[in-house]
Amino acid sequence: MALLGSGFDPGATNVFTAYIAKHYFDEIHTLDIIDVNGGDHGYPFATNFNPEINIREVTAECRHWENGEFVTTPAMSTRQSFTCPDGVGTYNIYRMYHEELESLVKNFPSLKRAQFWMSFGESYLKHLEVLGNVGMTGIEPVDFNGQQIVPIQFLKRLLPDPASLGPRTKGKTCIGCVVTGVKDGKFETVYLYNICDHQECYAEVQSQAISYTTGVPAMIGAKMMLEGKWLQPGVWNLEQLDPDPFMADMNRYGLPWTVIEDYQS
Amino acid sequence: MALLGSGFDPGATNVFTAYIAKHYFDEIHTLDIIDVNGGDHGYPFATNFNPEINIREVTAECRHWENGEFVTTPAMSTRQSFTCPDGVGTYNIYRMYHEELESLVKNFPSLKRAQFWMSFGESYLKHLEVLGNVGMTGIEPVDFNGQQIVPIQFLKRLLPDPASLGPRTKGKTCIGCVVTGVKDGKFETVYLYNICDHQECYAEVQSQAISYTTGVPAMIGAKMMLEGKWLQPGVWNLEQLDPDPFMADMNRYGLPWTVIEDYQS
Repeated sequence: MALLGSGFDPGATNVFTAYIAKHYFDEIHTLDIIDVNGGDHGYPFATNFNPEINIREVTAECRHWENGEFVTTPAMSTRQSFTCPDGVGTYNIYRMYHEELESLVKNFPSLKRAQFWMSFGESYLKHLEVLGNVGMTGIEPVDFNGQQIVPIQFLKRLLPDPASLGPRTKGKTCIGCVVTGVKDGKFETVYLYNICDHQECYAEVQSQAISYTTGVPAMIGAKMMLEGKWLQPGVWNLEQLDPDPFMADMNRYGLPWTVIEDYQS
Repeated sequence: MALLGSGFDPGATNVFTAYIAKHYFDEIHTLDIIDVNGGDHGYPFATNFNPEINIREVTAECRHWENGEFVTTPAMSTRQSFTCPDGVGTYNIYRMYHEELESLVKNFPSLKRAQFWMSFGESYLKHLEVLGNVGMTGIEPVDFNGQQIVPIQFLKRLLPDPASLGPRTKGKTCIGCVVTGVKDGKFETVYLYNICDHQECYAEVQSQAISYTTGVPAMIGAKMMLEGKWLQPGVWNLEQLDPDPFMADMNRYGLPWTVIEDYQS
């Protein structure tokens, strides 16, 4: 058996979607995955994981699902303000492409729209704009003194190692899914989310919340297979399997989640 | 004979100072060299000459002369707004170190204060701040895949070739000296400046005003030696020689200058 993409997003967000669809709706119509990182590492610019992947992801054109097809819009061109629950704060979130949209729209064909949103601070975006302007985020090799150098890989060499951010990062992540749909003929909105504290994660495992929220769902996915709860031949996305045992383990292994019914955004 | 630094600044600005001291004062007390480039090349970020020299100059600590010694202040920490004459416009100018201060304070020991100022736009400074933050303006080699790479030299490779800016650059430069001092017991302020138009320069020599204002004084310095007007054994700064024939040639070869007496800044 192969289980695809068992991190937080993709991963937990796929299971969140399946759990909401299973327990709160007859049919789901829209999905907004919202990934807020309210953490501050105190550096003017650093990326929370591999800078090359991070920057490629952010500078890529946005693709979201709408009325049966993926629609392309310029990178970072759609923004809204989002207030996280439980006092985590209000952040600017930007619509961008994220790979879990691909399988989710296939496995929930009733979805009329599916979007992914991520928070970015002003300073992060300023740095990204400038680095893009001068060509430092380029992925094509450049001839330099007879050597072939990929600018974004040289930039990665200069930036702080994401692993070094752990002890410095304060604040919380808030990642979840807002789903609308119909239950018993009535229109409903449900928000399911996890909040994770960078410093509590670091105290527990010497790594901040970005690593923690990625690693724990990877462990749970493996556990689901090893315990036989999800074990079946084939290649599977997480939303295709029963979400209940995975969601129970999220609560048990440090990533407790909350559901808000009748959610007002 | 060796003639040191015969560009515009250093170069013409040294001769401007000598000319003002010779013709307008018994003793000069303060000197402010003000270098405004009101040109716009339409790129988000590019440097007007060798980016490595340009960025090293701007990110260096500021040194200015005051009461008999050089005083060090943080790079770009002192700013003022300066309105150029003849409608060139109003710009933010920043105090920075420039090498002509070294010889000018030696050759005009009556100077109580000598400062150099240069204009920079908001976008230029934003790019410089970000590139500095991520280490791209660093001058020490970094090990990258077993090769030693100096970040600022790789950045230079990515930026537009300064020579390519010529046909794109619009606007004017305005470079000159504001000198205060005493004449016949009376306090006076004199401003002597040249204004140069980027597109007129390009039409004439296929290069914009930064190259033009640097190249013409180099030619005039050589001409002064070849014609015997400045020829004498030794190593000389321009302000140590008679400014009058040099100033006459500035008018003759495309860099006409203007003096404002009783200048009000």
